[in-house]
Amino acid sequence: MTKNPTTGAQPITFHPSGNAVGKPGTPYLTNCWYAAALSREVQGEDMLARQLLDTSVLLYRKADGEPVALHDRCPHRFVPLSKGKRDGDDVVCAYHALRFDCTGQCTHNPHGKQVIPAAAKVRSFPLLEKWGFIWIWMGNEPADASKLPDFGELDNGPASGIGHTYMPMKANFELIIDNVMDLSHVDHVHGEIISTRGQLTPQIPPVKEENKTVNVRWEWAQTPPMGIFAPFMQKPEESARHFVSVTWYAPATIQLTIGATQDDSAGLTLDQTVGQYDLHTCTPANANETHYWFATRRNHNVDDEGFNQFKIDAMHNAFVDEDGPIIEAVQREMNTSDFFSLNPVLITSDAAPVRVRRLLKQMIEKEAEKLASGG
Amino acid sequence: MTKNPTTGAQPITFHPSGNAVGKPGTPYLTNCWYAAALSREVQGEDMLARQLLDTSVLLYRKADGEPVALHDRCPHRFVPLSKGKRDGDDVVCAYHALRFDCTGQCTHNPHGKQVIPAAAKVRSFPLLEKWGFIWIWMGNEPADASKLPDFGELDNGPASGIGHTYMPMKANFELIIDNVMDLSHVDHVHGEIISTRGQLTPQIPPVKEENKTVNVRWEWAQTPPMGIFAPFMQKPEESARHFVSVTWYAPATIQLTIGATQDDSAGLTLDQTVGQYDLHTCTPANANETHYWFATRRNHNVDDEGFNQFKIDAMHNAFVDEDGPIIEAVQREMNTSDFFSLNPVLITSDAAPVRVRRLLKQMIEKEAEKLASGG
Amino acid sequence: MTKNPTTGAQPITFHPSGNAVGKPGTPYLTNCWYAAALSREVQGEDMLARQLLDTSVLLYRKADGEPVALHDRCPHRFVPLSKGKRDGDDVVCAYHALRFDCTGQCTHNPHGKQVIPAAAKVRSFPLLEKWGFIWIWMGNEPADASKLPDFGELDNGPASGIGHTYMPMKANFELIIDNVMDLSHVDHVHGEIISTRGQLTPQIPPVKEENKTVNVRWEWAQTPPMGIFAPFMQKPEESARHFVSVTWYAPATIQLTIGATQDDSAGLTLDQTVGQYDLHTCTPANANETHYWFATRRNHNVDDEGFNQFKIDAMHNAFVDEDGPIIEAVQREMNTSDFFSLNPVLITSDAAPVRVRRLLKQMIEKEAEKLASGG
Repeated sequence: MTKNPTTGAQPITFHPSGNAVGKPGTPYLTNCWYAAALSREVQGEDMLARQLLDTSVLLYRKADGEPVALHDRCPHRFVPLSKGKRDGDDVVCAYHALRFDCTGQCTHNPHGKQVIPAAAKVRSFPLLEKWGFIWIWMGNEPADASKLPDFGELDNGPASGIGHTYMPMKANFELIIDNVMDLSHVDHVHGEIISTRGQLTPQIPPVKEENKTVNVRWEWAQTPPMGIFAPFMQKPEESARHFVSVTWYAPATIQLTIGATQDDSAGLTLDQTVGQYDLHTCTPANANETHYWFATRRNHNVDDEGFNQFKIDAMHNAFVDEDGPIIEAVQREMNTSDFFSLNPVLITSDAAPVRVRRLLKQMIEKEAEKLASGG
Repeated sequence: MTKNPTTGAQPITFHPSGNAVGKPGTPYLTNCWYAAALSREVQGEDMLARQLLDTSVLLYRKADGEPVALHDRCPHRFVPLSKGKRDGDDVVCAYHALRFDCTGQCTHNPHGKQVIPAAAKVRSFPLLEKWGFIWIWMGNEPADASKLPDFGELDNGPASGIGHTYMPMKANFELIIDNVMDLSHVDHVHGEIISTRGQLTPQIPPVKEENKTVNVRWEWAQTPPMGIFAPFMQKPEESARHFVSVTWYAPATIQLTIGATQDDSAGLTLDQTVGQYDLHTCTPANANETHYWFATRRNHNVDDEGFNQFKIDAMHNAFVDEDGPIIEAVQREMNTSDFFSLNPVLITSDAAPVRVRRLLKQMIEKEAEKLASGG
Repeated sequence: MTKNPTTGAQPITFHPSGNAVGKPGTPYLTNCWYAAALSREVQGEDMLARQLLDTSVLLYRKADGEPVALHDRCPHRFVPLSKGKRDGDDVVCAYHALRFDCTGQCTHNPHGKQVIPAAAKVRSFPLLEKWGFIWIWMGNEPADASKLPDFGELDNGPASGIGHTYMPMKANFELIIDNVMDLSHVDHVHGEIISTRGQLTPQIPPVKEENKTVNVRWEWAQTPPMGIFAPFMQKPEESARHFVSVTWYAPATIQLTIGATQDDSAGLTLDQTVGQYDLHTCTPANANETHYWFATRRNHNVDDEGFNQFKIDAMHNAFVDEDGPIIEAVQREMNTSDFFSLNPVLITSDAAPVRVRRLLKQMIEKEAEKLASGG
């Protein structure tokens, strides 16, 4: 279910603080697409309340299935609209029954002479629905669909070959990006299923920055192959060549392709290996809490629904049980989101995550300058 | 049990911050009467600890039943006196057994030569006990009993015709006042028992400000009559004329009279209708938490104790289950007590609550000026 | 198990804020010994994470039993090292497997060419292990073993004659010191076992300040003797002379000796009475939370293990059930650690605790001046 974005700028004044609705100084990039929810998290007549970039957002679907995002705050007395009820494609506030359509315009005020105040609108946020995700644009500029990278490979295959999962984390989103951009941790944090048997750690992988993306790529051989691939290899106990290519796209999405092969003539690409195409994407709820989603499309055993569920559960649990406690402990110990202020001692494996942090910071500063100079 | 107030000013220095005990800047009106507790909340030998206007207050009764309010903080080492024990009408601190009488004067220091330091006193707060409530004066000026409005109608009838209830709320007190001063919410928030069947919402009720009170009054007809009155009408299924008159008294008490009649010649007053005389009063614990009490005296079926309990329970549950979650959600979404700083979009039904907010603000500013100029 | 201290100054820059690792302005004395743990709290291969002076500290034992304290924060990505695992006497970070020895030096970086960055070290803290406690030095100057007072009397007897206990408290550490330096509270707070039957309260005990210690001493007779001693007196129902001598040592340790005798010719000293030699010591976790330990060595019935356990349990419960709730209530009511800012009304029994507060404040100011002038 892929929908066209609403690309028009919103009529409501944008606060020049750099974040969507105007708490000053929160340093988020905003003229870009963030994941707001999995498609399946917004269903039927339900209203989903979710904090995104320090802002209360209401997500729901119109009768035709198109998703809608509104500022989850009635402009009258600041009741979250998600406490109210649906009226067709509109939302009725729980307190005084002001009704808003899916553009955020107040369409009914039952009080007195039923005059609708000129200012009675809530901000609506442009959305794109693609690849099982609902993407949101929270910046001041018109939404630009071309700024959402193409992750169409996620659609390349049957439903039984892709899994999605949602993992809320009590940590700043950049700690989650760091974690995926530096996979040298996998041998130390994770168990059998994604162990490289120590092959990743000694490498100094090449890092490429281009077009505001950062890519890091590892290649190695291991015996036996990685646990997630070994069962699909011809010789599950023997060596296989592996690769993983990880690309960050601003603001907070990482596309990771990983594969293994025992065919000496095969190239280390998704189509020539037993592999998978993954998306890690995260969206700050606020400085200390992050929505984190993962999707994985594999190119093997794609019709096995039971295996599909097993696999996404295993990946979910690996993040939640293994990465999660470490990342959340780092957040508590840092007690700030300003990583460099604590003078970290960097090592070779930090090249990619540090490149991402610096590039994102530049983009945020550039956006702030543009806003300060009148946009 | 109506007691005379202690009207003398307290000998302890008053902090010029505008609040009772001196946390700077909290904007409360203080030279006025707040509810401190229901009479029945302070019983026997018990000591009730309650935060009022950011201040720890101890409430208890002397042997003769007269209520006492002391700053709940031993001046020696700041133990809440409510942790101690009673010694007749005095209170003995739990830590070092300093004893204080009900004026707050230290009357015994068992240590060393038993010298009582000159400064060994705690602030006592003048109280008035009326209509099932204990009212407290926390300002720097001598308590002025004439400043407590006359809600004597609450005493007009048998005990089986009045109910009281207490509802602590995690919200700023002004949100609770807003809620009662704008009854247009009742058709949207509440269920059958107090529905006006949509008759209230279209009205633009007259708002009167006089003598530092704000009154708003609605009149309407509905079929069938309001659920709380219909069973006492001659024709429970037919139309009845209704009225509700709501008057705010500074700082935080609202008197609401409501009634219905099917007699065409009857005036819309309490004595000519099937009606009730209610008090809503609230006292800030702090900027984000409020003590909220409700009392209701009805003029019908007054001898029915079972109905009395049913009725107060129903009203209690309506506030706690229906208004409460909305008001507390507003508090969380606002994350401030400065309502106007969020640029609310006002509608006709806000006339009365906005008038109250502005009048209270003026009164607080005037009090602060008086204090600043030496008071 | 008494170990030599590591007395060399640490190579890591000390932050001039006066606390160990550099949160500005926290007013702790640092060039001194604090208790970090009971010896028995650090056992085998376990790693104990504990906040001390606003700083995350990891405590563990080397294979030879010597205790180690490291800043519990990997310098790479700030994971608490206590989340990692032991590798002999070293610790391996849970995230990227950097390994640190017990001096805090990074000894292995498995990544890339395995280069260890020059800055890859964590602060280690000198320790002394004596009398069942592990003592830590968190200041910038070289650890000075001579600054740990001699509490060797705790070793004077069999294991069945000494008990230790740990009591975490949600209160500033100075409130706990106040409590022990002013024993006049015992008749008001505690039950039978340590009641003086009111004899302590009327006294104005002599307070002596010398060599940066503060001593206060009470002597009295009571009938019957104090509950903890009466069973060991010849005439358990008759009068006995008692004494208690309480000495504070900077920063936060109090040695208390208490005894009773029915022999008219006996001196009021530990060796001539039925008595005990106690240590109260506490260490701030932060401004609002404190680690509090108690040890007691008695000179009677020393071979009775069952009694030993009974006695330490009784003392533990007296603190936790009787002092604890009062001290924590004071902390909540004060809502600051600046006691004098609240203008306490002092009485005679405050002489010793006030002397301690003033002396400690002077020592902290002197340390801060020294640091500010280059140390």
